[in-house]
Amino acid sequence: MSIQHTVVFRLVHPHGDQRENAFLADGRRILSSIPGVGDFTVQRQVSPKSALTHQFAMVFADDAAYAAYNAHPDHVAFVEERWATEVAEFQEYDFLAL
Amino acid sequence: MSIQHTVVFRLVHPHGDQRENAFLADGRRILSSIPGVGDFTVQRQVSPKSALTHQFAMVFADDAAYAAYNAHPDHVAFVEERWATEVAEFQEYDFLAL
Repeated sequence: MSIQHTVVFRLVHPHGDQRENAFLADGRRILSSIPGVGDFTVQRQVSPKSALTHQFAMVFADDAAYAAYNAHPDHVAFVEERWATEVAEFQEYDFLAL
Repeated sequence: MSIQHTVVFRLVHPHGDQRENAFLADGRRILSSIPGVGDFTVQRQVSPKSALTHQFAMVFADDAAYAAYNAHPDHVAFVEERWATEVAEFQEYDFLAL
């Protein structure tokens, strides 16, 4: 059964800043290129009921594809070099269709 | 621009309980029948990084359709009669594609 992996987050950069655009574009380019990642989307979060401002979402065919993504050097490097310094707060959710 | 309205939640009922199934089925039936609601989905949330266990998601064509849903008597009644008593905690997010 396919798994939708999502993370909702808020950047340290001001909204509209060039560094925001760069983070979103780099995240899309780097993460969507990792084998096994499908339906990669970047969205704005606009509900005033959350302080988080963006979402990355992607679909994996199964747990093995998800695990391979987590361990992939491009994912690890993105987390260490960009996520750790540019993301102020975040929440992960993984969804299975019912 | 279309809006994806989502809510991730945890019920007061034990997982697998008949009342869980009834809540999910009634939510799908009642909320997806409200005019303007598109692409209604019910999903399980399975990441151990969140205590929330389910998600309802739907798409509105615009802000007016979203506002009409919020004010619709069937939505108001579901929130007052079911959500208020059967949901232990929840978080809303609304997404716009980038």
